[in-house]
Amino acid sequence: MGRVTVRRRVLRIRDAVPSHRPDTLAAEEPMEIRVGGRPLTVTMRTPGDDFDLATGFLVGEGVVHAAGDVTGIRYCAGATADGGNTYNVVDVGLAPGVSLPTASLERNFYTTSSCGLCGKASLDAVRMARRWSVAEDPLSVAPQLLAALPERLRAAQRVFDSTGALHAAGLFTADGELLCLREDVGRHNAVDKVVGHALRSGLLPLRNTVLLVSGRASFELVQKAVLAGIPLLAAVSAPSSLAVDLAAESGLTLVGFLRGTSMNVYSGAERLAPQPVG
Amino acid sequence: MGRVTVRRRVLRIRDAVPSHRPDTLAAEEPMEIRVGGRPLTVTMRTPGDDFDLATGFLVGEGVVHAAGDVTGIRYCAGATADGGNTYNVVDVGLAPGVSLPTASLERNFYTTSSCGLCGKASLDAVRMARRWSVAEDPLSVAPQLLAALPERLRAAQRVFDSTGALHAAGLFTADGELLCLREDVGRHNAVDKVVGHALRSGLLPLRNTVLLVSGRASFELVQKAVLAGIPLLAAVSAPSSLAVDLAAESGLTLVGFLRGTSMNVYSGAERLAPQPVG
Repeated sequence: MGRVTVRRRVLRIRDAVPSHRPDTLAAEEPMEIRVGGRPLTVTMRTPGDDFDLATGFLVGEGVVHAAGDVTGIRYCAGATADGGNTYNVVDVGLAPGVSLPTASLERNFYTTSSCGLCGKASLDAVRMARRWSVAEDPLSVAPQLLAALPERLRAAQRVFDSTGALHAAGLFTADGELLCLREDVGRHNAVDKVVGHALRSGLLPLRNTVLLVSGRASFELVQKAVLAGIPLLAAVSAPSSLAVDLAAESGLTLVGFLRGTSMNVYSGAERLAPQPVG
Repeated sequence: MGRVTVRRRVLRIRDAVPSHRPDTLAAEEPMEIRVGGRPLTVTMRTPGDDFDLATGFLVGEGVVHAAGDVTGIRYCAGATADGGNTYNVVDVGLAPGVSLPTASLERNFYTTSSCGLCGKASLDAVRMARRWSVAEDPLSVAPQLLAALPERLRAAQRVFDSTGALHAAGLFTADGELLCLREDVGRHNAVDKVVGHALRSGLLPLRNTVLLVSGRASFELVQKAVLAGIPLLAAVSAPSSLAVDLAAESGLTLVGFLRGTSMNVYSGAERLAPQPVG
């Protein structure tokens, strides 16, 4: 697709001195995800890896769990009045027996819970949707290794350097080897692209892996990690309260403020503690 | 509500030395927005200013434009099995003649466009939804004044200092006076809370004002500014390509990378240029 970045002319003002110069922006365009021809959701994303994005999104909602759950993926033609293809509408075919929840998905996902809408209902919804548990995953990672990952991710982010506008998600082995890096204007999209790539490669559940995200850790990101079977989620910035709650209840190790040689472990510290803990 | 932050115990590892200590997290809980009793969307948000969030969201979707468009707002009781109130479901009553778009709103908003799904369709959808134009707004702001706003916003962010997890949105006068500050785990929610507060105070359209956001500027944030009648959106980090496109087509001034005495002006530079431009 080659639309990850876009060049634009910008007025730069520095110490009251203005100058015109070209600037590189992260591309953002809408993408509609259809399932079996039926429109499901629209997300604003950076074009590229769109099939991974669509399938990863469906993993995060508990709809698909294995490559075989998806029979085909394609860009819909005829999306414009003249029958052209904008490459912004992706249709996912599901195998027989794989079905969508009856209620609308995505943001309305949580309302399908029978108890009232609250943090606990959100936790319940994830527990009902998940196919595997990360609680028993034997992953063990030295803090020193974890501390090295943000720099490894950044080094791999060629695009980040030119725009400063892209979130990144990186999937690592327990030995710190980078398996997959994806970038997007939306952090949730970057994670979906990583998970979708893994699904289509037949790698789910992603046991014994570490997912690193460049920003904060929300409930939504922990949900996506749990549904993909990833036992450790690390974020460069802070987690939210509900992210910590979901991690603790799922047995996922959640690390925040991973900066330099410092980090906070919010749940599942046993995977991070080869040394004695004071 | 008093649930903006939550205290949790955390394992801190610094230079391989672990220690347990209490930590303050930003609260995150789901909130369902209903209109006339009908569920519309669920957003993960930081509790507090929920009525502002609900009405501001509806402004950003082009549904309401004045305080009189809303006849009432309330928390729905009976949201749990025992009839209790989670304070996570908000119902907005609309005045006669104020109606929702026929298609589902929010993320599916863009699909209502008759031409294909692409960046241009997104721009068209905003143009059709908006009630007023910001293009003729006579706002003029000295770059020096704009450069002072991030520090002013940060100083007002009491909560940010304790969690590092909250996005902030601040509405300023043309003289740099802070009119309204809102924080949330979701940047779009922080903006909705500011706009909803303004709507309910009878201040829409927000002519001659500046909206500052703590992170990046996406299409969605420019959309919310345009629909609220705000002529200048400034972000501490980068804008996306479609954010710049929408700003340019709407006549909104878009400033990014507002840091120290430096900034990039992506559109509407005439509002920022009292000095000659090289």
